[in-house]
Amino acid sequence: MNPVHTFVLTGTDAAAGTQRFPHGIGAADDAVSMFLQCGTQWDALAHIYDHGKMWNGYDAANVTSQGARLNGIEKMASKIVSRGVLLDVARYKRVDTLKPGYAITEDDLNGCARAANVSLGRGDIVLVRTGMMGHCKKNGWGTFAAGDAPGLSFTTAGWLHRTEIAGIASDTWGLEVRPNELPDAFQPLHQVMIPNIGLLVGEIFDFEELGADCAADRIYEFMFVAPPLPITGAVGSPINPQAIK
Amino acid sequence: MNPVHTFVLTGTDAAAGTQRFPHGIGAADDAVSMFLQCGTQWDALAHIYDHGKMWNGYDAANVTSQGARLNGIEKMASKIVSRGVLLDVARYKRVDTLKPGYAITEDDLNGCARAANVSLGRGDIVLVRTGMMGHCKKNGWGTFAAGDAPGLSFTTAGWLHRTEIAGIASDTWGLEVRPNELPDAFQPLHQVMIPNIGLLVGEIFDFEELGADCAADRIYEFMFVAPPLPITGAVGSPINPQAIK
Amino acid sequence: MNPVHTFVLTGTDAAAGTQRFPHGIGAADDAVSMFLQCGTQWDALAHIYDHGKMWNGYDAANVTSQGARLNGIEKMASKIVSRGVLLDVARYKRVDTLKPGYAITEDDLNGCARAANVSLGRGDIVLVRTGMMGHCKKNGWGTFAAGDAPGLSFTTAGWLHRTEIAGIASDTWGLEVRPNELPDAFQPLHQVMIPNIGLLVGEIFDFEELGADCAADRIYEFMFVAPPLPITGAVGSPINPQAIK
Amino acid sequence: MNPVHTFVLTGTDAAAGTQRFPHGIGAADDAVSMFLQCGTQWDALAHIYDHGKMWNGYDAANVTSQGARLNGIEKMASKIVSRGVLLDVARYKRVDTLKPGYAITEDDLNGCARAANVSLGRGDIVLVRTGMMGHCKKNGWGTFAAGDAPGLSFTTAGWLHRTEIAGIASDTWGLEVRPNELPDAFQPLHQVMIPNIGLLVGEIFDFEELGADCAADRIYEFMFVAPPLPITGAVGSPINPQAIK
Repeated sequence: MNPVHTFVLTGTDAAAGTQRFPHGIGAADDAVSMFLQCGTQWDALAHIYDHGKMWNGYDAANVTSQGARLNGIEKMASKIVSRGVLLDVARYKRVDTLKPGYAITEDDLNGCARAANVSLGRGDIVLVRTGMMGHCKKNGWGTFAAGDAPGLSFTTAGWLHRTEIAGIASDTWGLEVRPNELPDAFQPLHQVMIPNIGLLVGEIFDFEELGADCAADRIYEFMFVAPPLPITGAVGSPINPQAIK
Repeated sequence: MNPVHTFVLTGTDAAAGTQRFPHGIGAADDAVSMFLQCGTQWDALAHIYDHGKMWNGYDAANVTSQGARLNGIEKMASKIVSRGVLLDVARYKRVDTLKPGYAITEDDLNGCARAANVSLGRGDIVLVRTGMMGHCKKNGWGTFAAGDAPGLSFTTAGWLHRTEIAGIASDTWGLEVRPNELPDAFQPLHQVMIPNIGLLVGEIFDFEELGADCAADRIYEFMFVAPPLPITGAVGSPINPQAIK
Repeated sequence: MNPVHTFVLTGTDAAAGTQRFPHGIGAADDAVSMFLQCGTQWDALAHIYDHGKMWNGYDAANVTSQGARLNGIEKMASKIVSRGVLLDVARYKRVDTLKPGYAITEDDLNGCARAANVSLGRGDIVLVRTGMMGHCKKNGWGTFAAGDAPGLSFTTAGWLHRTEIAGIASDTWGLEVRPNELPDAFQPLHQVMIPNIGLLVGEIFDFEELGADCAADRIYEFMFVAPPLPITGAVGSPINPQAIK
Repeated sequence: MNPVHTFVLTGTDAAAGTQRFPHGIGAADDAVSMFLQCGTQWDALAHIYDHGKMWNGYDAANVTSQGARLNGIEKMASKIVSRGVLLDVARYKRVDTLKPGYAITEDDLNGCARAANVSLGRGDIVLVRTGMMGHCKKNGWGTFAAGDAPGLSFTTAGWLHRTEIAGIASDTWGLEVRPNELPDAFQPLHQVMIPNIGLLVGEIFDFEELGADCAADRIYEFMFVAPPLPITGAVGSPINPQAIK
């Protein structure tokens, strides 16, 4: 579901002379109605549960239809300023895009980091480019939303924990490989990453411009600033992340 | 009008066993319906017109109820990374908050900058603290929204142009002093700043923490990162600005 | 919270020549974002619970953030066509409006029905006019929304059950008297009416025109048609009720 | 775009014990965000313009992003109670559904009325069943929304005017035949019906149950009650129409 963008004041109203503001001033005002997970976004730690528990062992029932009492996105309001590292797995594999169903392994991540001449460690935010977003922008969105996609293998759970990175994001709708690798599972890596590792997880990022820039200067690390909107009790937030070199 | 935050999946649903996701995974998802100008926000250059024209001389009629064809907020998506300077006028005047109706003059701005040991120039984003937000957080919101407020005097228009700053923001709902200084006017400085100077204008910022920090280390300049959500054709955007020292 | 009414196509867009539809056709389209309980409305049987149970003994957990699986408003989609009876308690008491805090008793209801020369029975929908809506339309809304109000006494619960009426509605926000008569209670009559009697409950109705009409022709019964919007799984619905004589 | 139905209080919240209301009462509350034209609906007279004019010769510019100053849907709030007549053209033609692109002619309408033993006249609301809604409910929605459809021929304009009917509605998204019969046109009959005839136009009605009922008792006329939500300044409204025999 895309955001719905609507207006309560427009330039055409001003042009039609209907606004009656003094001295020739005119204005437009608009509104949006959107799912907080509908575009480039962070998941709050309140977003996913494992057997009824969220991060820090809190009960899922702390997230009511009035909002998350604990682990809401507002807790991260001023925290997402860190070192960012792009792992451009698509370029590393010399493909336009990884194919739907391709499971990115620990070896892929480590090999890609070595090729980019970066090391990863505590507090880093890792951006994984599969090429899917760029492919869809050129060739149509197809099943981009909630369909099959390349992404992290479930087997990277240990790597995600061991590296002590602070966050990870990708250019697909759900970060992990789809179809999932475990039988009858739905996003099993989320069930590990969010409630058990406490990892910041981002989805539907656009790394096309950043990928080209890093390929050009061969520098795959940067300052990364991507604060969420501080909506109290929200379980996610749209963002406009900035990689600053 | 405050944002309306609602849910389509909750932790309580998960706790009640109604989600039926496999292997014990549970999730919450939420939505928001909001005016794009309802909180900390940038105005797009498409937001305000002067006698039917917006910035660059475009007709206001380019902003229809389908969105702004020109000067929309998405044009600034990757541009708002700059030097920021805090002018803490309230502290400079040794008051908790400037009073509603107090018109901040060019002398105030220059004097405050000198006291802060900062100079201002091309491309800077200037943050003007009146103290109003902090006052209201302690004492109740009263007429914070659309009521009387301290703010920039209309006479600062020349200063805003001459300094070649890129943007200006304040901790009140409308940046300029209210009541306005010109008879029968409504936000006349906006009519100059946005369609005629092409200035980035921000409102409803919270400078309380930043003000205290700058008072403590006496450093009033910093890296400032405040990208809008890139909503195509929007005339404003909620933001979560980051001042990074 | 009032409904938010916004546009995605306007007549001013058409007037500005921006629509580019063929042969001179132009159009406007609009949207609304609203709480389903924000105006004249019916409560669904899924709206209120008594110790975790709703009407028919179903668990409250059947109402998730995905909607009511049972007792949703759509179940009443084609059912609300019945005999309506106006009990104009304000006129019966010869007042402009009953006062906030006035508890309407069984004696009031029976006396008012006798004076109106109507009897009440199975399947009727009873409309109780307190005068509050008319008073507020003339004198300002004050605490109309969620404040003190005249309304049904908790002691009318037996009457509501015994008469076998199908529904009851009033011209206040919450039907029952506020403050409530029981200590530390919140809408205790709702807790009886909806989950235990299975009664259709309506609020924020406007009976001013109907009251004047019935006073003029002294006929207090009519055909009453007030179908909800059939929103699947909703726990309430805005309506535009029609009393037809 | 379907309505988005969300919650701010749920039964699962109550079940989880998070509501903390006194004495065991629990509640659910919900919200909807929707286009007013997204389901069964009436067009307001402010919805369509002919060369910048709407019904009664008013300028289209009276419909701003703040709402319709004239011809808004609220003007019809208490007016849509009339004689209804079903013209079940699909049954008359002995088909499950008319085919997309089939243009219903004046001869079809008159022949169908004769077969149904009804005459049509001033103030009637005519319901035209193409069978499309029933077909889609069984076989999938396909291009129901905004695609090709059976519907009124442009040549019925004279009939619509001459019969002096008050309103007309159908079980397709746009009432008139699609593709339209005139080259390079978009809904040309709307351009005649709404701004020039002042006709009440309804779309996306479901006549399946009514069609079967009328076929069974061979009575094609009934009381018809279909009031819009009285949203001030709206250019359309969702409805739940009731045919009462």
